[in-house]
Amino acid sequence: MLKMSRRSLMAGAAGFPLLPMATTGGSAAMAAEPAAAPSSKPAAPKDLTHTLAHYVVNARYEDLPANVRKEGVRTLLNYAGVAIGGSRHQTVDIAVAALGPFSGPRQAGLFGRSERFDIMNAAFINGVSSHIFDYDDTHLKTIIHPGGPVISAILALAEMSPVSGRDFLNALVLGVETECRIGNAVYPNHYDVGWHITGTAGVFGAAAAAGRLMGLNEQQMVWALGLAASQPVGLRESFGSMNKSFNPGRAASNGLFAAILASKNYTSSDGMIEAKRGWANTISTKQDWAEITEGLGQRYESALNTYKPFACGIVLHPAIDAAIQLRNEHHLTAAQVKRVRMRVHPLVLELTGKKTPNEGLEGKFSVYHAVAVALVEGAGGEKQFSDRAVRDPVIVDLRGKVEPIVDASIKPEQVDMTVELTDGRELHKRIEHAIGSLEVPMSDTDLERKFIDLAEGILPAAQARKVMDLCWKVEGLANAGDIVAAGARS
Amino acid sequence: MLKMSRRSLMAGAAGFPLLPMATTGGSAAMAAEPAAAPSSKPAAPKDLTHTLAHYVVNARYEDLPANVRKEGVRTLLNYAGVAIGGSRHQTVDIAVAALGPFSGPRQAGLFGRSERFDIMNAAFINGVSSHIFDYDDTHLKTIIHPGGPVISAILALAEMSPVSGRDFLNALVLGVETECRIGNAVYPNHYDVGWHITGTAGVFGAAAAAGRLMGLNEQQMVWALGLAASQPVGLRESFGSMNKSFNPGRAASNGLFAAILASKNYTSSDGMIEAKRGWANTISTKQDWAEITEGLGQRYESALNTYKPFACGIVLHPAIDAAIQLRNEHHLTAAQVKRVRMRVHPLVLELTGKKTPNEGLEGKFSVYHAVAVALVEGAGGEKQFSDRAVRDPVIVDLRGKVEPIVDASIKPEQVDMTVELTDGRELHKRIEHAIGSLEVPMSDTDLERKFIDLAEGILPAAQARKVMDLCWKVEGLANAGDIVAAGARS
Repeated sequence: MLKMSRRSLMAGAAGFPLLPMATTGGSAAMAAEPAAAPSSKPAAPKDLTHTLAHYVVNARYEDLPANVRKEGVRTLLNYAGVAIGGSRHQTVDIAVAALGPFSGPRQAGLFGRSERFDIMNAAFINGVSSHIFDYDDTHLKTIIHPGGPVISAILALAEMSPVSGRDFLNALVLGVETECRIGNAVYPNHYDVGWHITGTAGVFGAAAAAGRLMGLNEQQMVWALGLAASQPVGLRESFGSMNKSFNPGRAASNGLFAAILASKNYTSSDGMIEAKRGWANTISTKQDWAEITEGLGQRYESALNTYKPFACGIVLHPAIDAAIQLRNEHHLTAAQVKRVRMRVHPLVLELTGKKTPNEGLEGKFSVYHAVAVALVEGAGGEKQFSDRAVRDPVIVDLRGKVEPIVDASIKPEQVDMTVELTDGRELHKRIEHAIGSLEVPMSDTDLERKFIDLAEGILPAAQARKVMDLCWKVEGLANAGDIVAAGARS
Repeated sequence: MLKMSRRSLMAGAAGFPLLPMATTGGSAAMAAEPAAAPSSKPAAPKDLTHTLAHYVVNARYEDLPANVRKEGVRTLLNYAGVAIGGSRHQTVDIAVAALGPFSGPRQAGLFGRSERFDIMNAAFINGVSSHIFDYDDTHLKTIIHPGGPVISAILALAEMSPVSGRDFLNALVLGVETECRIGNAVYPNHYDVGWHITGTAGVFGAAAAAGRLMGLNEQQMVWALGLAASQPVGLRESFGSMNKSFNPGRAASNGLFAAILASKNYTSSDGMIEAKRGWANTISTKQDWAEITEGLGQRYESALNTYKPFACGIVLHPAIDAAIQLRNEHHLTAAQVKRVRMRVHPLVLELTGKKTPNEGLEGKFSVYHAVAVALVEGAGGEKQFSDRAVRDPVIVDLRGKVEPIVDASIKPEQVDMTVELTDGRELHKRIEHAIGSLEVPMSDTDLERKFIDLAEGILPAAQARKVMDLCWKVEGLANAGDIVAAGARS
């Protein structure tokens, strides 16, 4: 079949298109084509999409290293916690109300809620829920939040058609590998220009994981990845609106949609990721192909996932960490604190210099509030950035005593804090890497504490405990779908 | 609320993200931001998305010029024909089989088929069906196929909640305006780099048209357009696979999804089209903002829609047109033809030089076959590019007598054909603009003939007639949704 895509060949002087669009594009070898990108770029590996699909279809649970399996389990637990935590937000209420009249069979449930939806709508809503507080997991190399797109899709599938916990965890890891590796290939340029990479790369993760659970063969997986490539989601401009949490949700449902169609042999082209007019060349000015296919089954991006301990920007985490440690070590109360001096990286004041936040969300941009509330409450969760917290007289009083000092010798991941007490004592804490970083990861206990905090007021404590237990022992479950059922409201 | 998006400010040396993503992006005013594009670019008009939304929400049917209404009706008729024509293709069979188990209430029907789906799935499948033969409408300035995304969405809505034909036609025109104007703003760069513009701009058209029928207010329409901006569909790499017709279908369902969520006040940012990290800057290197907002309600892109008379690339249309005219004027039979000499633009042989096509699809890339079948059958429809046609001994014999001669003085839209007959006569025809161009548009009768040809074998003739009649008189219909009901199989 003849293929052409040079526009100047297709169009006459008046933009007269000369060929049906079905016949254009797709020919990476066509010498007459103008380059969409500088010609100095390394060529994409032949059959890149096939190579990735082959891996996703064939990788075995038994071959996953123990640390990878463990991180997958932690990713699952953290995901369930944030999805439960976001489930009563107005954003979810709206999505549930809007989509209810169009839902298919009630195949899958929602965390923290009683409604049920068809799997694609359920995946969308759980994905939205998981991102509402911006408190989900982070693959630091790409700022992708890997859990939302992948787990929202495969938990819905697992509810509809029971799947063993081992197969589920394998699919989860493969989905995270897929989205993070593709993200690595295009980050940072792709993100810098304006794409919300969690939604654009996330579709691939959801399609790969869902396709694996559905038993796609390699060719079908290639098509699923191709249909995923056709459905990127999300622009950074939407940040600050409900549209931001829309993105991982829609990535989940788009990935499912792709896998479902591919499972019935709905075709796509074979090189949708790497071809000249494929995803990576169209959507990014950078393509580091090796990131996608090198070391498949050897190195695992999913082992690099991290989890936020505090519900605010990471720029604040060292200071909050220091404040909580000092509070807990010395059993501090607000009344004891005379002054908090701390040397911080310049960005702390640039980004979070708001002195008098009036609303909860503003508190996330106030190092004064963040340190004060951490000293008083020993935490930095969503509750510590509520309207209640930023208006608490004790915290308001204390935040006036916080004195950040910009110090260019302090790295972004550091803080050097000295708390002066009314009795004259000075307490000192220096943080090199805050809790939640790769260097000082959240412990399992930390993750449980975060989960419990998020679930409080939404699920009874015993139910929250049960969901956590199911997550920890997912590898032994006969049906991973039990996790959503356990986390829904009856 | 503090906003930051400069990556270097967000990340430390090790790519340590310092702010939650919810707080980044969206600040076009931030001086510290690196430009995603050259600073010489004209700034986007303030409130561009709002301006467009205001127009879509408030424009009245009564104010549409007669030629615009008429072209809208012709767009509708052509859409219904191609959607019926594609409805039995394997691509649609697969989509129906794959999505059936997940469909919501059977709110809307499919052209040419008996199945019913929820409106989003129905819009998807009808949109796929309308594009399968690459025989749909074309906005020549952008190569957008405007009908598929827009009409698929609003016909489904109209089936669910009856809507007058006048409101329907108004929404159709507004949807086409929206997608083609946004397409104009980014074409050709956006298309050149690899996006399938029908799917990327089409989402806006579907969201605008659906949102208008759903009665969104201006703010909700802004959000609908924002959620549409978050869901572009389609890469040119997919051309030649089922993924191509996926794109207008998914544009239709994504647009509906956006409008449905926005109708319940699911928010987006206010400047998703024009903001620094919004759609146009992220997805294209060219942004001609005036194309979107200048002359709203004054000039109409929808009046420039065209309809293919022949089911192949436009490069072949002048030759087919000439052959059909000579055949009809002189009542030619294949046996009379000794030789067909014709002077053609160089592209004709470059693109369609296949001498011995063996399959129907290959026939679309053979000027020899196209002219031969046109002389024998007096048509260039889908049937003329079937396996049957390219293997017909009479046509195979005649194609060997076709002698195209490249002539650089011939424009792409021209042909100069001389048919030598066995009796020694020479018949001559020169085409300046082929039928189907803006200069020589398809007549209403031509459109009906195309429709009847597409519907043959799928709907009984009387039923096809009824669908056409409903399309022609759509402005008098109490419920435009009757059109799909009439075009479905019972």
